[in-house]
Amino acid sequence: MSASETSTALRNLLDGRWAHVRERARSQLADPALLPDPTLDTRAARARVLDQLHVIAKTGYPAAGFSADHGGGGDIGASITSFEMLAYGDLSLMVKAGVQWGLFGGAIENLGTERHHDAYVGSLIDLDLLGCFAMTETGHGSDVQNLGTTATYDSDTDEFVIHTPDRLARKDYIGGAAQHATMAAVFAQLVTDGTTHGVHCLLVPIRDAEGSDLPGVTTSDCGHKGGLNGVDNGRITFDHVRVPRAALLNRYADVAADGTYSSPIENPSRRFFTMLGTLIRGRVSVAGAAGAGARVALTIATGYANERRQFRRPDDSEVVILDYLAHQRRLLPLIARSYALQFAQNELVSRLHDIESADHPDPHAQRELEGRAAGIKAVATWHATRTIQECREACGGAGYLSENRLTTLKADTDVFTTFEGDNTVLMQLVAKELLTAYAADVGGLDVLGMVRFATRTVADVVVERTAAQQVIQRLVDAVSSDDEEHDLLERGTQLEMFEDRERHVLETVARRLRRAKDRDPDEAFAIFNSAQDHVIRAARAHVDRIVLEAFVAAVDRCTDDETRTLLDSVCDLYALSVIEDDKAWFMEHKRLSAGRAKTLTASVNQLCEQLRPHALTLVEAFGIPDELLGAEIVRA
Amino acid sequence: MSASETSTALRNLLDGRWAHVRERARSQLADPALLPDPTLDTRAARARVLDQLHVIAKTGYPAAGFSADHGGGGDIGASITSFEMLAYGDLSLMVKAGVQWGLFGGAIENLGTERHHDAYVGSLIDLDLLGCFAMTETGHGSDVQNLGTTATYDSDTDEFVIHTPDRLARKDYIGGAAQHATMAAVFAQLVTDGTTHGVHCLLVPIRDAEGSDLPGVTTSDCGHKGGLNGVDNGRITFDHVRVPRAALLNRYADVAADGTYSSPIENPSRRFFTMLGTLIRGRVSVAGAAGAGARVALTIATGYANERRQFRRPDDSEVVILDYLAHQRRLLPLIARSYALQFAQNELVSRLHDIESADHPDPHAQRELEGRAAGIKAVATWHATRTIQECREACGGAGYLSENRLTTLKADTDVFTTFEGDNTVLMQLVAKELLTAYAADVGGLDVLGMVRFATRTVADVVVERTAAQQVIQRLVDAVSSDDEEHDLLERGTQLEMFEDRERHVLETVARRLRRAKDRDPDEAFAIFNSAQDHVIRAARAHVDRIVLEAFVAAVDRCTDDETRTLLDSVCDLYALSVIEDDKAWFMEHKRLSAGRAKTLTASVNQLCEQLRPHALTLVEAFGIPDELLGAEIVRA
Repeated sequence: MSASETSTALRNLLDGRWAHVRERARSQLADPALLPDPTLDTRAARARVLDQLHVIAKTGYPAAGFSADHGGGGDIGASITSFEMLAYGDLSLMVKAGVQWGLFGGAIENLGTERHHDAYVGSLIDLDLLGCFAMTETGHGSDVQNLGTTATYDSDTDEFVIHTPDRLARKDYIGGAAQHATMAAVFAQLVTDGTTHGVHCLLVPIRDAEGSDLPGVTTSDCGHKGGLNGVDNGRITFDHVRVPRAALLNRYADVAADGTYSSPIENPSRRFFTMLGTLIRGRVSVAGAAGAGARVALTIATGYANERRQFRRPDDSEVVILDYLAHQRRLLPLIARSYALQFAQNELVSRLHDIESADHPDPHAQRELEGRAAGIKAVATWHATRTIQECREACGGAGYLSENRLTTLKADTDVFTTFEGDNTVLMQLVAKELLTAYAADVGGLDVLGMVRFATRTVADVVVERTAAQQVIQRLVDAVSSDDEEHDLLERGTQLEMFEDRERHVLETVARRLRRAKDRDPDEAFAIFNSAQDHVIRAARAHVDRIVLEAFVAAVDRCTDDETRTLLDSVCDLYALSVIEDDKAWFMEHKRLSAGRAKTLTASVNQLCEQLRPHALTLVEAFGIPDELLGAEIVRA
Repeated sequence: MSASETSTALRNLLDGRWAHVRERARSQLADPALLPDPTLDTRAARARVLDQLHVIAKTGYPAAGFSADHGGGGDIGASITSFEMLAYGDLSLMVKAGVQWGLFGGAIENLGTERHHDAYVGSLIDLDLLGCFAMTETGHGSDVQNLGTTATYDSDTDEFVIHTPDRLARKDYIGGAAQHATMAAVFAQLVTDGTTHGVHCLLVPIRDAEGSDLPGVTTSDCGHKGGLNGVDNGRITFDHVRVPRAALLNRYADVAADGTYSSPIENPSRRFFTMLGTLIRGRVSVAGAAGAGARVALTIATGYANERRQFRRPDDSEVVILDYLAHQRRLLPLIARSYALQFAQNELVSRLHDIESADHPDPHAQRELEGRAAGIKAVATWHATRTIQECREACGGAGYLSENRLTTLKADTDVFTTFEGDNTVLMQLVAKELLTAYAADVGGLDVLGMVRFATRTVADVVVERTAAQQVIQRLVDAVSSDDEEHDLLERGTQLEMFEDRERHVLETVARRLRRAKDRDPDEAFAIFNSAQDHVIRAARAHVDRIVLEAFVAAVDRCTDDETRTLLDSVCDLYALSVIEDDKAWFMEHKRLSAGRAKTLTASVNQLCEQLRPHALTLVEAFGIPDELLGAEIVRA
């Protein structure tokens, strides 16, 4: 098999279920006009991205995410996959598209009912209606449950009154709010007859056709940002703004003309999380975009490292820098992790598609999916931040020039670890879901919720396998249980080490948190707080494991022997570099002797050496159109 | 003692020997006009920085770095310290100043002789002459010894002919070359009568007063960069450009009218490193600037974390985010490391001042200083990259707005790990210096040099203490040698662990490299290459140790008991978090049992909790003028 055939075989595996969407996007989006231009000022960047958005609207991709009943394409997986492909271009465009069709459109699609679908879905797909998603407030980012904005029902006029009570309740960082959006999906505490029913979403017009703020609405501009300057982030305050009762997105809760509140979901906390859960696609899309960003950076840095020479050999020839072990160590484990994360992302999208396409989604599956989406979003965005930074440094001075794209990629993706859920908070959410074993009764992520969750943790932790369960069982069984010094290159050993770590960390953190039971609130908080790092580690161990399982399943799907052998080594490098990163834990917990720890380092080095000749093949398999690579240093 | 008195006492310690320079700079530079403006386009940013440069010229700081004989102030330490203070403002200005007075001026001052000093020092201090430092080439960044540009002597006309033989020999990334510089200090292979004498520096006029390229010179623009857009980086090619013989900076080598080459330093490699060694101040200045950048970020993020609340306690009050252990873990160890690095930087500047102010600098001390400067530059700039990134993330969405400065700080400092020596290369230089025990005969960093160095490594590694030697000996002696489970909070235990690690890593890497002896070049390269990570680790262990020693010496200088107790805990946090970061190594090498490893984590957590109430005091001690903090989120 030639290198190019191998890279095609790998690409097919990486492309996954929506390969046809990716292929079409590769030809349709291969347009340098979609690349970012970091030299534009904020005004020009915003105008350019709005123009690009209209180009995208005409491709038909945006419609895919909406149900056929509402004039959409009804293919959720295709919709998320095409967003991911968009991330090879200007990330401002990807975010602008995400706000318009994913968040604003998604709120209407998933939280609204027929009256909203009929009125808005068509025009928001076509961009006749530009919207924004007004959730975050100046004082409340992660803690959405405690938003300050109110929507108070006035039965005299059959209207809701939207109001910003104080500066901390101001809507902030809202994409589209500074300039283009004429309507906002506003998250606010719903109040009827003096009773607060928690956070709900309402549609509130904010600007007229000329772009002026409507009465009672004050928008302002977040100004220049560290990146994504093609997105017009802004702030909104409401001064007793009235909207008709029908403005409430009423799929999960409604208010009758007389002010009677009703909801099919009785528990307010569960209702809140159900409403947030419908917005899961945002997190999945950011994870996908992060993966795409990391792959662009790795393709550039690997291409450069394969050409660039520095320092001479004894025979006076100059050494290609990718021949240095230190340089292989910088790039190859990140390539392996990018493979792992793309396989996990594909599983996630596929699962989301199946669950959300079902007529009656299974609530257990839905909750499990939420946890997984949160975890993969966090891990994928951290990976992108780290990878793009490493690639910038690995390209030296050339990496610092905008013409080589890496700095813009770094700047634009930097907020991914923060938006759609701060990673540190998301990881706690993941741990909480695992520890409560998706219990029916859920608390928030506030301290009270944490304490409740602490006191309800299950006694026995169940590590549920997520992909290719039979294959994994077979691999684990193949490891002889007698020999304590299992071969680290055996897949079964790796799987066992990942599972065992997850189980152990979860069990010990559960034990620590259970001590909070029956303590007074202050003590319970102190116990939770001192275990916070442990909680985050539990989530990390979980995500690492499900990512490995996705990789193992992908290797199993590979039908060509030669390609499979290569992919096997990439999977080894992923598994062993994860274990190496957490080597101290494995030793501390007697899972790895000092001797085996040294073998581990040697094995990672060997894998790097072994994969080095395939480095270009591995990044070519990412299939990023040449036109979208956009780096002078790797132009042919 | 009040918190403000404590912070003043700490500030005095952190300010060190040139405290008076820092204090003067605090009042003179406290000007928001010196803050970066990320919204400016490249043209406007460059113009602004040039204007700012003229303001700085009038303060008299730049003259400090030049000898009194040449019209300067003759205070090297003051000069470097004031550069560091400049780094609290716009980093483009700091770099522009560094290029003009540090690199271009430094080349003339240190590599030139009276004829150059008389002709240029006065006018470059006053900015009548704007220069650039043309060392790096497109194909040669780290490997300066193999630059391609030639300076061929023509005895018929008593001139040098400066020439760019190919595209890889083009001068690249040169600050000032795109627009403002009229003269370049050009590094080129000196050729006389067909013999190449290695890299030397010559002064070459490149532009006329109107800004047009001189005949034979072609400049171009590197364009937009990931940061530092106030600096006009550019490229230069020379097509047989003639300069008079006197253009050679001839302190260390000269060419007579008949073409006879002479130098007081016979060994060409040693001559080369001696010439580079005079440029050490650039590295020291970048290390200082990196430290300043990290301190600005930590001051902003700590101020924010001390105010920002998110999620509720059981009593319904919201939790200040710095009360979360996970948040303390993000910021406090970085604050501790910033203290450690500032003390180490102060020692470095002080030593550089003493050595370079001497009439006849001790060559051994000079070499040792070079190694230390390289190591601290690498560690300080990695620290800055990591710290500023962490601070950005710790401030969430607010951290992404340019008005809060962190993203600009990140973008501007990002190239610090690359310029003035790529960190990965510098760390290998550090290890090489240690392993050859500063042997008289030095090789380059090319593979040949590496192999030579590999075969000459000393048998016994000597860990030389660098600061407060008696105090350190006393602390180490105080550790009872019988008890294997030394208290990790004892300073003597920490010092021993750092020393022991350095010694062990150096010894084992020396043993590995010695195997390269008598092998053929390919095998020798393979042996070096497989040990490359080990080499870098050795350098890291060394730098960590000298940084800890500088911290210990600073604690010893602290006269107030209360302040000292606090500083002691900060020093503990530095030492233990370094050990924690490398916990796997300590366990793998039986320096830390599994049980003690767990104690270590608990101790770091306790130190975070203990220092949390002092977090603001600790960052206030950095003494960054309010006017230069420039972040909306921490404005009073």
